[in-house]
Amino acid sequence: MVAEKGILFILSGPSGVGKGTVRKRLFEESTELQYSISMTTRQKRPGEVDGVDYFYKSNEEFERLIEQEQLLEYAKYVNNYYGTPREYVEETLEKGLDVFLEIEVQGALQVKENFPQGVFIFLFPPSLVELKNRIVNRGTESQELVLNRLKEARKEIEMMDAYDYVVVNDDVDHAVAKVKSIIQSEHLKRVRVAKQYKKILEDEIH
Amino acid sequence: MVAEKGILFILSGPSGVGKGTVRKRLFEESTELQYSISMTTRQKRPGEVDGVDYFYKSNEEFERLIEQEQLLEYAKYVNNYYGTPREYVEETLEKGLDVFLEIEVQGALQVKENFPQGVFIFLFPPSLVELKNRIVNRGTESQELVLNRLKEARKEIEMMDAYDYVVVNDDVDHAVAKVKSIIQSEHLKRVRVAKQYKKILEDEIH
Repeated sequence: MVAEKGILFILSGPSGVGKGTVRKRLFEESTELQYSISMTTRQKRPGEVDGVDYFYKSNEEFERLIEQEQLLEYAKYVNNYYGTPREYVEETLEKGLDVFLEIEVQGALQVKENFPQGVFIFLFPPSLVELKNRIVNRGTESQELVLNRLKEARKEIEMMDAYDYVVVNDDVDHAVAKVKSIIQSEHLKRVRVAKQYKKILEDEIH
Repeated sequence: MVAEKGILFILSGPSGVGKGTVRKRLFEESTELQYSISMTTRQKRPGEVDGVDYFYKSNEEFERLIEQEQLLEYAKYVNNYYGTPREYVEETLEKGLDVFLEIEVQGALQVKENFPQGVFIFLFPPSLVELKNRIVNRGTESQELVLNRLKEARKEIEMMDAYDYVVVNDDVDHAVAKVKSIIQSEHLKRVRVAKQYKKILEDEIH
């Protein structure tokens, strides 16, 4: 295949949906994905390596990078910053490697704003599918219970509006297979591939 | 999964690229795809069944359907019309089944105009990839030969501009696997899925 830039994939979804499990299984099966390395101001712990576990920065350095828009997203937990460095992601993509970022919904929305060319995958709890079955088999649940669940479902559905794909996590194997098909097919998109082919023509004919 | 309409997939590409072989293998492996049944004015042959091999129509009927824009594409060969009936495709999609159409480039461009919501896959000859390798290993080919090949390649690349995906047919198994990943991931697109989820909410809350 013609050389091509990598793609940034963002896996996100409501807390408790199983993002970490899906990401872990995916990395066991796919050796070509690069995991995005975060940047932090927290103290390096024994055994951790700079540029492997995290990129370690001082508070001043981190805040300067925020000002320079060098973070695709960041947040502060317990007085420490955590974030995704734009430079590391862009350099990895330039090498033709895909970067995979597993992140909470708020972080994903920040990435969407700073890097809209990423591919955003929403991992969805299977409960709405169950809910639908419950509605179909009416009478087995109280109306109040169904209405409460519908309110929650509405929130989850509104969250997915910023995403490109939705994968229901009803089973880890199924969810991983679906994420893999998204990764493969995104590389087959004409807008990406045609650009590369056209570049060969331009380089040679002019 | 929540009930969803089917998707029309169109596989096309330059003649000789191997569309028929890829389609045949795909249908051996995927039982869920419906092959699009064409409409024709040619005589029914012994053993053929109306609505299975073709929909057989008189010349007058076919021309009336053309006027009524009831064909996604059509062409005339040796005094007979051949075309893809819109009604059959739409009814099949409504049942939640995907329709798969293998077709020449000119027909695909007609379908694109009449049914832009289809997913258009361009099967690409592997020769441009070989061409690139030749350019990299310069000196093994005459400059004239490479320039001629580049002219042809330009035509092929311009053809793919109307398509959503490009699959290089360097190997039937690889090409089929890629088409399958496109089919799977298209069903995971948020624009399709979210609509279905939102419908459940509307049906229930209002």
